[in-house]
Amino acid sequence: MPLSAHSLSQLKSISQSTNWQAFADALSPIKTLIAPAQVNKLSKDYYYFSPILAKQLQDKVGDLVVRPKTEAEVLAVAKACVTARVPLTVRGAGTGNYGQAIPLAGGVILDLSAMNAVKWIKPGVACVEAGAKLAAIDRISRPQGWEIRMSPSTYQTATIGGFIGGGSGGIGSIMYGQLADRGNLQAVRVVTLQDTPRVIELRGDAVQQVSHAYGTNGIITELEIPLGPAYPWAEVVVTFDSFMQAARFGQALGNADGIIKKLISIHAWPIPSYFIALQEALPEGKAAALLIVSEGDMTALNDIVKEWKGTITYQKDAQAASKGVAIAEFTWNHTTLHARHVDDRLTYLQTVFPYDPDLKLMQHMHEHFGDEVIMHLEYIRMQGKILPAALQLVRYSSAERLNEIIRYHEEKGAFIANPHTYLLEDGGRKTVDEKQLRFKEQVDPYALLNPGKMRGWRERD
Amino acid sequence: MPLSAHSLSQLKSISQSTNWQAFADALSPIKTLIAPAQVNKLSKDYYYFSPILAKQLQDKVGDLVVRPKTEAEVLAVAKACVTARVPLTVRGAGTGNYGQAIPLAGGVILDLSAMNAVKWIKPGVACVEAGAKLAAIDRISRPQGWEIRMSPSTYQTATIGGFIGGGSGGIGSIMYGQLADRGNLQAVRVVTLQDTPRVIELRGDAVQQVSHAYGTNGIITELEIPLGPAYPWAEVVVTFDSFMQAARFGQALGNADGIIKKLISIHAWPIPSYFIALQEALPEGKAAALLIVSEGDMTALNDIVKEWKGTITYQKDAQAASKGVAIAEFTWNHTTLHARHVDDRLTYLQTVFPYDPDLKLMQHMHEHFGDEVIMHLEYIRMQGKILPAALQLVRYSSAERLNEIIRYHEEKGAFIANPHTYLLEDGGRKTVDEKQLRFKEQVDPYALLNPGKMRGWRERD
Repeated sequence: MPLSAHSLSQLKSISQSTNWQAFADALSPIKTLIAPAQVNKLSKDYYYFSPILAKQLQDKVGDLVVRPKTEAEVLAVAKACVTARVPLTVRGAGTGNYGQAIPLAGGVILDLSAMNAVKWIKPGVACVEAGAKLAAIDRISRPQGWEIRMSPSTYQTATIGGFIGGGSGGIGSIMYGQLADRGNLQAVRVVTLQDTPRVIELRGDAVQQVSHAYGTNGIITELEIPLGPAYPWAEVVVTFDSFMQAARFGQALGNADGIIKKLISIHAWPIPSYFIALQEALPEGKAAALLIVSEGDMTALNDIVKEWKGTITYQKDAQAASKGVAIAEFTWNHTTLHARHVDDRLTYLQTVFPYDPDLKLMQHMHEHFGDEVIMHLEYIRMQGKILPAALQLVRYSSAERLNEIIRYHEEKGAFIANPHTYLLEDGGRKTVDEKQLRFKEQVDPYALLNPGKMRGWRERD
Repeated sequence: MPLSAHSLSQLKSISQSTNWQAFADALSPIKTLIAPAQVNKLSKDYYYFSPILAKQLQDKVGDLVVRPKTEAEVLAVAKACVTARVPLTVRGAGTGNYGQAIPLAGGVILDLSAMNAVKWIKPGVACVEAGAKLAAIDRISRPQGWEIRMSPSTYQTATIGGFIGGGSGGIGSIMYGQLADRGNLQAVRVVTLQDTPRVIELRGDAVQQVSHAYGTNGIITELEIPLGPAYPWAEVVVTFDSFMQAARFGQALGNADGIIKKLISIHAWPIPSYFIALQEALPEGKAAALLIVSEGDMTALNDIVKEWKGTITYQKDAQAASKGVAIAEFTWNHTTLHARHVDDRLTYLQTVFPYDPDLKLMQHMHEHFGDEVIMHLEYIRMQGKILPAALQLVRYSSAERLNEIIRYHEEKGAFIANPHTYLLEDGGRKTVDEKQLRFKEQVDPYALLNPGKMRGWRERD
């Protein structure tokens, strides 16, 4: 361990011995929050989806929330943290679910939600501050014919900085692939925690140094993100007699290159029973497909639904879809949220099945685990092909059994992005990302940024 | 043969014995052209790309060109043809190259180029008359943020009716697949040649009854076509030391889901030497990739070019690309056109290689045939995956050798859409399309529409 960098336990004791009121006063007029109820609330995310993380992280809180309004204020906060050697954990809206925004050693919670300007929009590209909410960006860009390419199911509240820092894809991934794919993030501005904090601009491939790094190696303050065309999006629910029929329909719709779609979300029974607001469209025992397609392609959608013997039970044109219940809010991680509202012993997996038009491995898992691991698919585009990602619901019994389920998937060739770890690399990435580690060495020499989350750094110590 | 339908030779003699001046006079005030030079010119397409078709079709001409301005006029022409039992061959701009618009038994050439209205445009959909030129549609739709999803390299002159009647895909197919894919044609209006001609509207899957049928089973007068977003398109040429490196780059770019692209056209040397207007960007001996990508994705494109060790030798942003040389006019069938300008013994193949990330079969053909079959790839999306179509240039020696080359491809598993036949089914489809045949029986009981082109009908006789 370099002399300059602190271990997690050292950072904890520094946090504990810091006079946070004095720290806050020194930052004035930068907005701070110190009341424990507020700090506790702003220390959390949706980590409790995982019973493992729930246990590990329930007592982890920061000491002071700082809510800057400008990049200059971020630089000032960075300087104060470096000087005092206190941890700094960046936060957007706290809608992540890997505990990525939860501070492990106390310290400053840097809440970027007040830095939410949309600086400019051009055809196909927007420049936004990190705290801009996804839905807010779209409210400005849509009238110009453009919208963000992809979003999590927390679209209404999530910030773009949080999504880039901790997300990997979502609604729209069926068109544009993953956030990590070239082109899906064009540029970022990053504030460092060096002795003299500065702003670094990264562009093109270089953004991979800080994207999906949980804020462990820089504070993303501003981003250039690509926009996609704002089609008039229709929302549709189709039901099927069997889950596999629904799944095959999903693959076929994904492969239908002439039908523009933003979401193909497939749910085995009883998941549809958890979607209270959609009950009229979800008959007992049926599998359901929740779809967002271009309104202009509704005739084509009807034809493919007929071919696959589905029944359209819910349909909103773009005008109607802009009001009331949003179908996207029952998909991706929101599926888990709704399920847990009904039964909080449910947890989840995140899986990518290898490309296979016959869906054999996915079908095997569906049949093998039965009601213990309930299939929920989100079709995505991955390296040019359409394949099912899964966010299966798991009836949790023990950590041992959960790990056994994960191991079984991995042994059979399914890729598990484990949502039951707060370690960056142990989720979706599996290996230490050398370029992210090198970047952290450069910009965070005292290891103050979201300490304890990057396994590569811990192992390096 | 039903008593009511005529054979090709019977139709020929009817055509020969018809008084065409009187026929034209009776149609007045509908515009007609009877001067042989005009009729001859408007009887042809680019069939001479094929030495086989050149020989078969050089003496085939119609007797009278009729150029209606309205659907009512089309109905009147249809009635006149049915009454006189004379053949009617529909024509757009004559930019096809399978002889699909060339009348085999004389008769009326129905030139729809004067029916060129754009009737309405909504977000993502346009309603147009069959004779509207593709470029003309875009001139109206682009200011509204939309453009046609795909086009042939004859974009500037081709009509939408001709493209739907005889095309299969083109520039844009890397995004939207093939014209035959659900959603890529929404509805058509078709005039029949029944005793009392009428208008039938087909929508959704039903359009497949008449699309890509060479006008053998109805006269398409109006179409609803989907539109895609009008990105600001940049044009780029990238050169590579070897053809296979260029091909692999093309596959990787096709698979790069976050980069929006409209064209990935890959050319083995010496094809680039045929592109006179682009010579400065095409160094001796290098393979070339001609690309159209969203201007906003240029940084990502630069990164992937670097990864594949290509050299960008030509680059126009969207503003510059709207003027001067259009890169698309060196791709798809225009590649063959430019090659034949330099060496008119060159002809071509149309091939789809099966999906294979390693491109093995394509590489085999490239190496096996050497300079006799020069590789030209157009990457397309097909059933959800990116794969190379090829329009290889062939150094023609004899019909026997050409067929041998075709057979070799087919035996090894490559799909050949033979461009050396004017028979509908022997090109890309291979089997008789029962629904198109049934539709012809219904709407063209006297078999007057583009006679001799539908093998299914001939075999039924």
